[in-house]
Amino acid sequence: MFEHPWFEISGLYASERSEGKPYGTAAVWHSPTPLPNSVSAMMVKNIEHVVEELDQYDIVFSALPSDVAESIEGRCAVKKPVISTASAFRYKEDVPILVPEVNAGHAPLIERQKKERGWKGFVVPGPNCTTMGLIISLKPIYDTFGIKRVFMTSMQALSGAGYPGNSALDIVDNVIPFIAKEEGKVVLETVKTLGRCENQVVHNANFAVSCTCTRVPTIDGHFLSIFVETEKECTPEDYKKAIAEYNAACFQTFGDLPSAPKETIVVKEEDNRPQPRLDRELGGGMSTVVGRIRQDEVFGTHGIKYCSLSHNTKRGAAKGELLATEYLMTKGYL
Amino acid sequence: MFEHPWFEISGLYASERSEGKPYGTAAVWHSPTPLPNSVSAMMVKNIEHVVEELDQYDIVFSALPSDVAESIEGRCAVKKPVISTASAFRYKEDVPILVPEVNAGHAPLIERQKKERGWKGFVVPGPNCTTMGLIISLKPIYDTFGIKRVFMTSMQALSGAGYPGNSALDIVDNVIPFIAKEEGKVVLETVKTLGRCENQVVHNANFAVSCTCTRVPTIDGHFLSIFVETEKECTPEDYKKAIAEYNAACFQTFGDLPSAPKETIVVKEEDNRPQPRLDRELGGGMSTVVGRIRQDEVFGTHGIKYCSLSHNTKRGAAKGELLATEYLMTKGYL
Amino acid sequence: MFEHPWFEISGLYASERSEGKPYGTAAVWHSPTPLPNSVSAMMVKNIEHVVEELDQYDIVFSALPSDVAESIEGRCAVKKPVISTASAFRYKEDVPILVPEVNAGHAPLIERQKKERGWKGFVVPGPNCTTMGLIISLKPIYDTFGIKRVFMTSMQALSGAGYPGNSALDIVDNVIPFIAKEEGKVVLETVKTLGRCENQVVHNANFAVSCTCTRVPTIDGHFLSIFVETEKECTPEDYKKAIAEYNAACFQTFGDLPSAPKETIVVKEEDNRPQPRLDRELGGGMSTVVGRIRQDEVFGTHGIKYCSLSHNTKRGAAKGELLATEYLMTKGYL
Amino acid sequence: MFEHPWFEISGLYASERSEGKPYGTAAVWHSPTPLPNSVSAMMVKNIEHVVEELDQYDIVFSALPSDVAESIEGRCAVKKPVISTASAFRYKEDVPILVPEVNAGHAPLIERQKKERGWKGFVVPGPNCTTMGLIISLKPIYDTFGIKRVFMTSMQALSGAGYPGNSALDIVDNVIPFIAKEEGKVVLETVKTLGRCENQVVHNANFAVSCTCTRVPTIDGHFLSIFVETEKECTPEDYKKAIAEYNAACFQTFGDLPSAPKETIVVKEEDNRPQPRLDRELGGGMSTVVGRIRQDEVFGTHGIKYCSLSHNTKRGAAKGELLATEYLMTKGYL
Repeated sequence: MFEHPWFEISGLYASERSEGKPYGTAAVWHSPTPLPNSVSAMMVKNIEHVVEELDQYDIVFSALPSDVAESIEGRCAVKKPVISTASAFRYKEDVPILVPEVNAGHAPLIERQKKERGWKGFVVPGPNCTTMGLIISLKPIYDTFGIKRVFMTSMQALSGAGYPGNSALDIVDNVIPFIAKEEGKVVLETVKTLGRCENQVVHNANFAVSCTCTRVPTIDGHFLSIFVETEKECTPEDYKKAIAEYNAACFQTFGDLPSAPKETIVVKEEDNRPQPRLDRELGGGMSTVVGRIRQDEVFGTHGIKYCSLSHNTKRGAAKGELLATEYLMTKGYL
Repeated sequence: MFEHPWFEISGLYASERSEGKPYGTAAVWHSPTPLPNSVSAMMVKNIEHVVEELDQYDIVFSALPSDVAESIEGRCAVKKPVISTASAFRYKEDVPILVPEVNAGHAPLIERQKKERGWKGFVVPGPNCTTMGLIISLKPIYDTFGIKRVFMTSMQALSGAGYPGNSALDIVDNVIPFIAKEEGKVVLETVKTLGRCENQVVHNANFAVSCTCTRVPTIDGHFLSIFVETEKECTPEDYKKAIAEYNAACFQTFGDLPSAPKETIVVKEEDNRPQPRLDRELGGGMSTVVGRIRQDEVFGTHGIKYCSLSHNTKRGAAKGELLATEYLMTKGYL
Repeated sequence: MFEHPWFEISGLYASERSEGKPYGTAAVWHSPTPLPNSVSAMMVKNIEHVVEELDQYDIVFSALPSDVAESIEGRCAVKKPVISTASAFRYKEDVPILVPEVNAGHAPLIERQKKERGWKGFVVPGPNCTTMGLIISLKPIYDTFGIKRVFMTSMQALSGAGYPGNSALDIVDNVIPFIAKEEGKVVLETVKTLGRCENQVVHNANFAVSCTCTRVPTIDGHFLSIFVETEKECTPEDYKKAIAEYNAACFQTFGDLPSAPKETIVVKEEDNRPQPRLDRELGGGMSTVVGRIRQDEVFGTHGIKYCSLSHNTKRGAAKGELLATEYLMTKGYL
Repeated sequence: MFEHPWFEISGLYASERSEGKPYGTAAVWHSPTPLPNSVSAMMVKNIEHVVEELDQYDIVFSALPSDVAESIEGRCAVKKPVISTASAFRYKEDVPILVPEVNAGHAPLIERQKKERGWKGFVVPGPNCTTMGLIISLKPIYDTFGIKRVFMTSMQALSGAGYPGNSALDIVDNVIPFIAKEEGKVVLETVKTLGRCENQVVHNANFAVSCTCTRVPTIDGHFLSIFVETEKECTPEDYKKAIAEYNAACFQTFGDLPSAPKETIVVKEEDNRPQPRLDRELGGGMSTVVGRIRQDEVFGTHGIKYCSLSHNTKRGAAKGELLATEYLMTKGYL
């Protein structure tokens, strides 16, 4: 975002604790890529004042904690469009969880939202970072073969818990089989994002999802093990062909957006891929990496199993929201 | 084994490379528990000579690599009982994969094996270390509610790959989604061990299993995420009750065996357990630790999901084989 | 401590946050060794009330955070002996930092402390967990060859930072070269503990110490790389001989104390030892493990370099304090 | 190197095992940065044939294992310049261990080497990857204040051991305090590279070095804890000023070389830096990152201590050799 061709950061807001500090001091910066000086020097303002200063901005990007997101994002949306990584609005009927390559067709919910709420702006959140690598990899299956059941086990990266997040004592030589609220979010968001939008109403996808979410000692990149029962027959080769067609369609529709990867899904043919450390940066961290595609022993001809990897702090967070924003701009919503 | 009340190590055999060296020098010893001096000082002999020296021993414990196991174990079994962690004989019709708490009833295959092969001894292998935590946790479900389908994703410990096993460069900040041949073994062994033995024939359990096996940076303890569709209704409370009854039955039958844990399955009620580093040593590394028992969203009233942990180098290897041997002794097979 | 032959836990005190909860609920328990039920069920009281309830106890064991330790330990010491892991009293002239095998001769400071402060009890702290593996390994050098200069670099375990301590995000694939206040403590404590006590006054050891302390992703066991310039000539063999004599003397004097290890210093001859995961539990976590003893290239005949390992949450904390307490009991201070 | 402005890869040689395979198949590629297709498709030839095919090439880059390096590099150097990461020639009197910012003045040894050996080409190796972060950080101290003694403890990354290198079982929750031959190399190379070259003879720097080398679970980036006794007084501010001047001089002399970083040494003022994961890529992996600069307690006004970080597979290997080659080209040696 720091050097985005279409956007410029013109204000930064956070809690009282960071107020009046330069962003470089207020933020604990963990990325090896250094902050640009211009951003590092920008003074952080108090989030309480954002609503009254909205006239200075065209778009609000929000990564607020869920407890304050609903109130602040709602008040901002009265005047301006809000693109958010927070979950506060995700499950509301008039709010799309927008991932261009999955459900661009949900964008018209924005009109309903503005009309029903009497807002000049709107709120568009993205999905949870764990949902992202699931729905993108399911999309070509769902569209081509239909889906009946999905079982997913995640091995999620530490950065997904924010900072400080997990204690180092808890994760060395260990797996933590619990991430609060995560499993429920994945289930709801998967069937909503893959649902059909008609007349500004989303009809959830009609398949069942079950998941178990765990934390493992990787820095970035949520890894998923997925089993899918399909409506129609689907072999591994069928899935790969569907991915190739999906990638081509995505490239044609979204390929000009600055944050879009060349391949929405990268297929790995090697036995032992995807691996978080080696593959998470593919497509600038925006590609979903799928591997170990096999016919499923339980579902037989009507099921496949595979592994999926998605960069949780890029595709699953800020950079994914940028892509959604870029799409909304080309469609005139911004 | 080093201080077992019933057994004494009277000979050690390995490949030519270790021949003539004291065991403490020949073995790369990675356990914080030091080797007893008596074992450390014992001279390692060449495995090629074991057959001709069998008269000195009552039982042969084998942890041979699979490429040599079939030949050597077979030649030993002509004269003596062989208890093995190797996979060479696991899938043969006249060979039980013996886990007392799961399939003590398969022991009569030993008689068929001896008769058909004309052996004075026999070969009894244990299951793969990943299969172990699956079948023990499935056993009370299968017996009480029946099983239709099982989906499992493993997060396996480094020690499962032997030494040197995985390169450190491959596993720091990473997950490796492939373990050669592992998934096929788990599928075969699960339905065989849970099968019914009648007239010295095993009829495999009639349910379907699918799994994906991965390696994570834990030292010991194979962690499994499991989804089960049951024949009859089964709630989490039902499963826990079945476990309690199963534990009681196991304790009554096997509780006197030196290597048997007090609880075959330890149920963890905390949200975030089992965890490999904290729970793998429960029951002296012999208990299977089950947690996060929940009703499954996909299978509804007829399905549960949970996590299981089993110590791969204790229950899933040597100590598990000791328990099987102890059982066979009490039943007169040895 | 939970099953100590001489001591029994009869009260537990903590901050208001834990008040009224059973210890098993109040404490985040990270050890694979489970809490005994009797301790787990014990109700935690408010530390504010400990002073008025002191009559119920014979000894106070304190592991208070440094900001409250000075006040509370001081008020307790008016009536009862306080053995502490906190640093609050360590640097006071009338307080010994007591490690029996290093400076049993400092115990008479207790009499001065009681007299000068008019206390019936006293405060005796142990050293910082990083100091411990340094001073024990230096002790036979100092006594036999004299010391002029010491350079030490530590690689400290995560448990040294308490819980939650370091963020997992900070330590995977990383080293953190800073631990607040640690280096200053090590310098002060090393020369004080190795000092000579005469007429209830400690004269610091007259050598110079410099250190750099870092955090690495180990769970337990502080590892130190040490370079020592000696007064007299000292070869690696000389050091080993001095250790052997030191161990013998320690065993003779302290060998009957329940928490004393058989060998105060375990010498490892292998090239690649000590290693935290393999060696930290030696002597029940109470031995200091020394290896890679070499003549130093810079100091020549008058210097050696080596590595030292000490279990920071056993020898460097509670269990080390138990040993000091046991010693004080045999000497009539308790 | 793959997209270097001055060089083009026109042939790849390896052992018989890789012969005839495309490089992308022959090499185990662990970097998240993918191989360019042109290199991946290039057929690997047998190293035994390199000598007879030398006419096709202008320069030979060697990263051969030390056991074969001496013979093959020597035979190549008869005809062509060889730039090497191998240690085979490092300690020979007529061979410079060339690091432009440290000892550009050693380049004239090349003429002596060619003349004495009757070679048309020559061999120029770089230093060991651990030596690199030591000598660059010592250079401004040595030139400005003189050096009497150096003590160094390394915490080296896994990639320094090559692939597969360390077993994962050895390094999780652990430190390995031994790296074969490393300490001796560091000592020899430090005084040679910092030595003075006069009339094609290198006079080693006249100070003493002692080190202990360890392996920790970081992927890349060798971290060093360093204590230095100086000839003249040197405060932390003095050192920082000397670094600033050194950086300026380096930039003026080498700033135009494609692989040169903008700052040869990056100074970190934060308490807890450098950290391998956050800082190793600074300057494209070519900067040495220095932090925690403090006056040393032992050496007083005549000593400082600090931490240094250098990317072992970039600055300490191929990319460092590229820089040396670039320098030699501008000086007419190539």
